[in-house]
Amino acid sequence: MKISIAQLNYHIGNFEYNKSLICNAIKQAKGENAELVIFSELCISGYPPLDLLDRYDFIEKCGITVNEIAKECIGISAIVGSPVINKNQEGKKLFNSALVLSEGRIVFAANKALLPTYDIFDEYQYFEPEKSFKVFSLNGKRLAITICEDLWDEQPFDNKFEKSRLYTISPMEELARQNPDIVINIAASPFSYTKTESRENIFRNKARKYGLPVISVNQTGANTELVFDGASVVVDPKGNVFRKLPFFEEAIVTFDTGNLVSGQVTTIEKPDPVELIHDGLVLGIRDYFRKSGLKSAILGLSGGIDSAVCLCLAAEALGHENVRSLLMPSRYSSEHSVTDAVDLAKRLHTRYDIVSIEKPFSAFEDDLSALFEGKARDVTEENIQARVRAVLLMAVSNKFGCILLNTSNKSEAAVGYGTLYGDMAGGLSVIGDVYKTDIYRLAEYINRHKEIIPENIIKKLPSAELRPDQLDSDSLPEYSILDNILYQYIELQKPPEKIIEDGADAETIKRVIRMINFNEYKRYQAPPILRISSKAFGAGRRMPLVARY
Amino acid sequence: MKISIAQLNYHIGNFEYNKSLICNAIKQAKGENAELVIFSELCISGYPPLDLLDRYDFIEKCGITVNEIAKECIGISAIVGSPVINKNQEGKKLFNSALVLSEGRIVFAANKALLPTYDIFDEYQYFEPEKSFKVFSLNGKRLAITICEDLWDEQPFDNKFEKSRLYTISPMEELARQNPDIVINIAASPFSYTKTESRENIFRNKARKYGLPVISVNQTGANTELVFDGASVVVDPKGNVFRKLPFFEEAIVTFDTGNLVSGQVTTIEKPDPVELIHDGLVLGIRDYFRKSGLKSAILGLSGGIDSAVCLCLAAEALGHENVRSLLMPSRYSSEHSVTDAVDLAKRLHTRYDIVSIEKPFSAFEDDLSALFEGKARDVTEENIQARVRAVLLMAVSNKFGCILLNTSNKSEAAVGYGTLYGDMAGGLSVIGDVYKTDIYRLAEYINRHKEIIPENIIKKLPSAELRPDQLDSDSLPEYSILDNILYQYIELQKPPEKIIEDGADAETIKRVIRMINFNEYKRYQAPPILRISSKAFGAGRRMPLVARY
Repeated sequence: MKISIAQLNYHIGNFEYNKSLICNAIKQAKGENAELVIFSELCISGYPPLDLLDRYDFIEKCGITVNEIAKECIGISAIVGSPVINKNQEGKKLFNSALVLSEGRIVFAANKALLPTYDIFDEYQYFEPEKSFKVFSLNGKRLAITICEDLWDEQPFDNKFEKSRLYTISPMEELARQNPDIVINIAASPFSYTKTESRENIFRNKARKYGLPVISVNQTGANTELVFDGASVVVDPKGNVFRKLPFFEEAIVTFDTGNLVSGQVTTIEKPDPVELIHDGLVLGIRDYFRKSGLKSAILGLSGGIDSAVCLCLAAEALGHENVRSLLMPSRYSSEHSVTDAVDLAKRLHTRYDIVSIEKPFSAFEDDLSALFEGKARDVTEENIQARVRAVLLMAVSNKFGCILLNTSNKSEAAVGYGTLYGDMAGGLSVIGDVYKTDIYRLAEYINRHKEIIPENIIKKLPSAELRPDQLDSDSLPEYSILDNILYQYIELQKPPEKIIEDGADAETIKRVIRMINFNEYKRYQAPPILRISSKAFGAGRRMPLVARY
Repeated sequence: MKISIAQLNYHIGNFEYNKSLICNAIKQAKGENAELVIFSELCISGYPPLDLLDRYDFIEKCGITVNEIAKECIGISAIVGSPVINKNQEGKKLFNSALVLSEGRIVFAANKALLPTYDIFDEYQYFEPEKSFKVFSLNGKRLAITICEDLWDEQPFDNKFEKSRLYTISPMEELARQNPDIVINIAASPFSYTKTESRENIFRNKARKYGLPVISVNQTGANTELVFDGASVVVDPKGNVFRKLPFFEEAIVTFDTGNLVSGQVTTIEKPDPVELIHDGLVLGIRDYFRKSGLKSAILGLSGGIDSAVCLCLAAEALGHENVRSLLMPSRYSSEHSVTDAVDLAKRLHTRYDIVSIEKPFSAFEDDLSALFEGKARDVTEENIQARVRAVLLMAVSNKFGCILLNTSNKSEAAVGYGTLYGDMAGGLSVIGDVYKTDIYRLAEYINRHKEIIPENIIKKLPSAELRPDQLDSDSLPEYSILDNILYQYIELQKPPEKIIEDGADAETIKRVIRMINFNEYKRYQAPPILRISSKAFGAGRRMPLVARY
């Protein structure tokens, strides 16, 4: 059986666009004599549709679009993902369905049973879990059609407290009893740099366990925070990878299942995680702008490594002509801040402007002098400087219609080392899920062929430059120590005692954890953060602000 | 049987505090010769604990606290709510449990079966739904112990697209077969001004349906956005209300179930929704501060009705001596803006300071004049003014350790009529879930005994005063029309065509809906909003920012 898999980049709610993507792929698959073309989970609506699923008009449009696409399925079948109304009297209003389209109509529906509802996933908000499972015969082949998590009934978790079997049923066990020939999995599985291998292993293990080929189809592209990496795989019944589609790119691949069973194994190089993070962030920026109908960006360039890396990523994502920066020196800025920033902007051929913050900063000091009489200078004045910069950046953003990119990193966000409405401002956080130590790795990767980011920027000691001779290390542990604690507490969710046992300094850990918990209120108002880890700040991590813990 | 119900105000993660609240209530119940004292859902951890439930150390502390409380249960039994580890091999890691404590130990556990996972509820993220149900005999009475939604298997929804039976099982049906004598429901059910009656009706209908008394115990108090109204009720087997506990207050009430069955009915006046909203917001502010260990607040007082209402609410919640305001006139401010604001601040005996925004505003204009040369004035300059005010407010907030209260209303938030990092700034949004037309009702309620808010402030036409002679009605439909559209679209989730059918102007509706959808990015970064409706902006309403819909 000749099958095409279509790894595409959908746009949430843009039904015309998604339809044309899908119909073009059907045409191409037909041209390659495929009998079946497979698309990813909820490709009709785009993933994740979130609370648009609560709107009846949205669901109606999904139905209309599926029917229109079905009309194109003459002489070829297609599997598409769509929300479908649950017609039973009881339960949630929708199913998350894989629909088989053939001869102009919907001929079969498999509904998702295991609905991920953890971290950024919220599927049980909208969908009723399916409880019965049937293979579907197409041109003499018995297809076990599953949707994403349905095949992930056993999975490793970062948090040791979590169970590896999160569900009490296994759809694949039940499908296996019906003697399928091929397992199909349509997915919408977001990127995490620690998870690419384990995801592939899930498919390989299932193939081996059941002695069946597994065809997985993931989407690519970014939707606000979530970046989908594609990397769809076809696995032979022995668990070897037969085909692997690219990371972060659209691709349509056609193959014969006859060859699949006979096992022409592909050897794949293990991808470099820093390269994947880099490519994921570039795609994340590009799709945020493209899908919002936006073109150009602005950011504040401080002469430090964070904004330098962001400028490089943005220039690659949007084109150097669409990214501008503002250099905003103050009385506390070192000379190299400006010269290093100018050097970088020039190397990237991006526009830059220099605006001193001195005048508005002084005006605020004057305005407040009576009110603040007798009070010592403190973090207030540091925050005013950061906020003056945000006002300037937002003014240019408003006047020229360019979106402010936020350049805060995950280490800062974790401990609250940043100013709300100041350097925490922006429409999209580029590196808010990247720890400081990984920012250096990204800089190294960006410089892999030639020095784009000046060595000066990489070598200097991190500083916010909000008071004379200030260094990050005045207020924070060394980043290598800090990031290690953060990773164990945030990603691995280890109890503090366990982190201490594992060798970190008890006082430092307690202090860092206090800072994390105390600063939940700041992160509540942070911009959406491009997610590249298994636990990013934002929708996938919600803490009660008034808790005492 | 003598039973006490304890409607208390818990603090998330503050185990010592919750324990002492609970132990004091046990003591009091003992003093009143109660055999059983009933507490609300997840009272040990506080509700909602959100992702603290992912932390093993947090769950361990819940267990320790339950055991300590059990030791106090000698000669009396207690029902408490706590997360409990799911010891089965498969499924989510926790149960949401009602634990019966007696003779120093846990003697019975009923686990929650129906796990609300919609709007602000996310319980299936953490909890495994229970599938088997048993009544528990205590001192000869057979108790059917249910947890919140377990008894709400049939409920009305605002969104007509939703099913009234959201679940495929009914715990109460199964418990009813075991001939219970009393139905107990422990809950953590947040306030919504449209839902107080329907919630009571759920209990009354269940009592009638099964011919059994129903004892419901809700919590009171606020945790960040969510305000819990208490209003626990005891219903006799005929569905009449036998006891009703107060709204928004702690209370412990003891009664004899003998009297309950013989039916001494209480007649209750229907509460005024505006009074409830007022009291809910006051409690919301008070608990945000108290539970965060904070004392004092600041807000920007514009001379308009929104900030006036917020100042009154804050003064009532925190005491007039703990609330200060900043009046920040500009070249576009009308004279009455300042005089009206001063008048109000004086009437409330709250401190106010006047700081003109002219100097920093001019400094920004100067700083940007070269960059903006040849560009017309537009919304950029309006936003700069709003942001200058935020910088001043946050400076006072930082210097004096008072928290900035946000004074934006729901109508503005819906259509994006506000400046990010400007008037949208603040640690807590007081009226962000109150439509403009209801702000007038709140003002009227605040003035019910005497004129606190000057008539001038109530009578003037709404204006942002960011350019000469600006009025809200220049950019927006009249608020009575706007709010009606917003309510139908946001709360009732009606499709646009249906709102048009129901009589609103098609062009206006389309324009308003475009504004709502376009401004999702602003609301993403808004402060937590005290929730008083059935659909507030924030955690209970998540829309994909890059969608085209």
